Amino acid sequence: MSVPKIVILGAGYGGLMTAKGLQKELNHNEAEVTLVNQHSYHYITTKLHEPAAGTSHHDHARLSIASVINTNKINFIQDRVTAIKLNEKEVHLENREPLKYDYLVIGLGSAPETFGIKGLLENAFFIRNIDSVRMIREHMEYMFARYQNEKKEELITIVVGGAGFTGIEYVGELVDRMPELCREYDIPLEKVRIINVEAAPTVLPGFDKELVDYAVKYLESKGVEFLISTPIEECTEKGVILKGGKEIKAATVVWTGGVRGNKLVEESGIETMRGRVKVDEYLRAPGYDHVFVVGDSSLVFNEEERPYPPTAQMATQQGQHLGKNLAALIRGGEMKPFKYMPKGTVASLGRKEAIGVVGDKKYVGGMAAFLKKVIDLRWLFLLGGVSLVLRKGKL
Amino acid sequence: MSVPKIVILGAGYGGLMTAKGLQKELNHNEAEVTLVNQHSYHYITTKLHEPAAGTSHHDHARLSIASVINTNKINFIQDRVTAIKLNEKEVHLENREPLKYDYLVIGLGSAPETFGIKGLLENAFFIRNIDSVRMIREHMEYMFARYQNEKKEELITIVVGGAGFTGIEYVGELVDRMPELCREYDIPLEKVRIINVEAAPTVLPGFDKELVDYAVKYLESKGVEFLISTPIEECTEKGVILKGGKEIKAATVVWTGGVRGNKLVEESGIETMRGRVKVDEYLRAPGYDHVFVVGDSSLVFNEEERPYPPTAQMATQQGQHLGKNLAALIRGGEMKPFKYMPKGTVASLGRKEAIGVVGDKKYVGGMAAFLKKVIDLRWLFLLGGVSLVLRKGKL
Repeated sequence: MSVPKIVILGAGYGGLMTAKGLQKELNHNEAEVTLVNQHSYHYITTKLHEPAAGTSHHDHARLSIASVINTNKINFIQDRVTAIKLNEKEVHLENREPLKYDYLVIGLGSAPETFGIKGLLENAFFIRNIDSVRMIREHMEYMFARYQNEKKEELITIVVGGAGFTGIEYVGELVDRMPELCREYDIPLEKVRIINVEAAPTVLPGFDKELVDYAVKYLESKGVEFLISTPIEECTEKGVILKGGKEIKAATVVWTGGVRGNKLVEESGIETMRGRVKVDEYLRAPGYDHVFVVGDSSLVFNEEERPYPPTAQMATQQGQHLGKNLAALIRGGEMKPFKYMPKGTVASLGRKEAIGVVGDKKYVGGMAAFLKKVIDLRWLFLLGGVSLVLRKGKL
Repeated sequence: MSVPKIVILGAGYGGLMTAKGLQKELNHNEAEVTLVNQHSYHYITTKLHEPAAGTSHHDHARLSIASVINTNKINFIQDRVTAIKLNEKEVHLENREPLKYDYLVIGLGSAPETFGIKGLLENAFFIRNIDSVRMIREHMEYMFARYQNEKKEELITIVVGGAGFTGIEYVGELVDRMPELCREYDIPLEKVRIINVEAAPTVLPGFDKELVDYAVKYLESKGVEFLISTPIEECTEKGVILKGGKEIKAATVVWTGGVRGNKLVEESGIETMRGRVKVDEYLRAPGYDHVFVVGDSSLVFNEEERPYPPTAQMATQQGQHLGKNLAALIRGGEMKPFKYMPKGTVASLGRKEAIGVVGDKKYVGGMAAFLKKVIDLRWLFLLGGVSLVLRKGKL
């Protein structure tokens, strides 16, 4: 007798939590679960701003997948998905025969949203994954190393496009990194420029104003320049051109201004908005009862019909929920509707500073920074229990 | 009564030893000695291949000048020499009034000799000083970091032009560095190419054949490719073009194929050969009795009228000799002719391998590597005695 085939695409927060859930819920031979991921590791997206600035090593932001799932229960395939064929119920891979599925979970993450800004994809860097952040770090260091040879100010000018969550957290890490970086390359600290450019009229749109002010004041005290209500019109090899024509020469431009869904999802024929799928209450793609979408590829709306921002917290809850629902489904049971329960948000500003809201309480400074670390530890705990927390966690 | 002014240009091996000698020989107010150097530190040229590969930090290859000379006895000026005016007996500096001298010591080091190879100065890197080697290291790391993003083989291909001393020592360090570098950037070690290109018919021309064979065999066993009797015709943004037209694509090209004298010496009007001054037996420039030249700017011939290669050993002996001669001179005494006493040569091949000749004995492997370290320690001892050896030395 053949068992249902569940294929999970992507080992991000959503996919990994779904796999972990199925691993726990299902008995031997109830289903054949396959997890496909491009890399042999899961990367902790909420920490990528640290290795991107070089304040921590990228190995602290990744975990071997084999170390967090039971490969006796879950087939793990390291390969790149090239196409999703919904009618044939199969997934095409770069180096293998297509995979057949009965149930498909799409957790393929996001891609940068450029909002049509010219030259951005070609000339800017993106905080996306291990490969991209280690490249940012090395690029920046190379530019700093060139400075004493060429003495051009743009080599030590960094433009961060976007003052949302990732942008602000990255700027916070850069501030922490600069003293060491300047010592390494014999550069006076005051010569370095970090410029955060944001099109919206505020830093961290949607965040509590008092906390935003705290963050801006702190970062400005460390020399960060904010250009708010300032759209970037073009990104060139030399820097950025702002709306109105003013140019900022910068050898390093990092774009954090937004994400869209993975192109593969759009190409599959599923209806998307900016590449993201507006899922139903069971996290299903519209029109495809056997296809579920989690994480940044999905779009969940709140009661006022506004979309929740794509976060690790959302993806984690989706994955946890979907694991249980899928187990129920293959046993002929009922699925339960998904409801997102926001637990709070903390944005780090380097190692020792942060701002956050948990419940209806606001936190700043050391207390918020501590909360942020607790949240990181919680993810490790969900993935690998106490032993993983002890092995990889830092307070 | 005014005392004679001695101005020393450059705090390399030659200039620094001259300054140290004068500091020791002269009594208070016998002369006014000024040492001019572009950086606040002396760099240990014989070690630069290590930070260039990233096997050791560049701080291990430099010493603060203030820590090795007595600035109560020697005036130290950190500035860049822009011109030597022999008729006016003055030296022009970038940020200060010209310096008057009665005796001038030129130890301004070397510049890359390109032998007219097109594009070399623009596109290759050079193992010259702290600024240049830290840039090589960061460039290489950035190229390796890009590899997982772009998957182009040339990003992890390194061409070293020249298989002389520096070239071979650098290749030896690269071999040592690669395992760590590949781990850092998730690159399979066997994919990296290190290609050493040499126009002459042998590696390490002039060196003992048996030792050369040992070095080549060792480096080849570590995957290094040698292209001997192969002149480089052009260096481009993409790599090198060999004589005959064959192209090697390489993101990192490091040229170690030779040096010439500093341009400032040529521009001063002193007669030079490839920018180097054929000094007389008192290390004087031809036609200028008060101008002495030491180190890579000078050219000393052996008894068969062949020039000695420019080495740290030569510069050190010149500086030691000149310090004594200058002290004698200002006291109205006789100068003694300089005679170079070669003490042997050791070329490192990474941390644990080397080849060398000391006296009439040949050394390979661990013993030679140990000798190399002893030579490094000797330089620290000459500069700063036992305390400096203990502070900065490594065995």
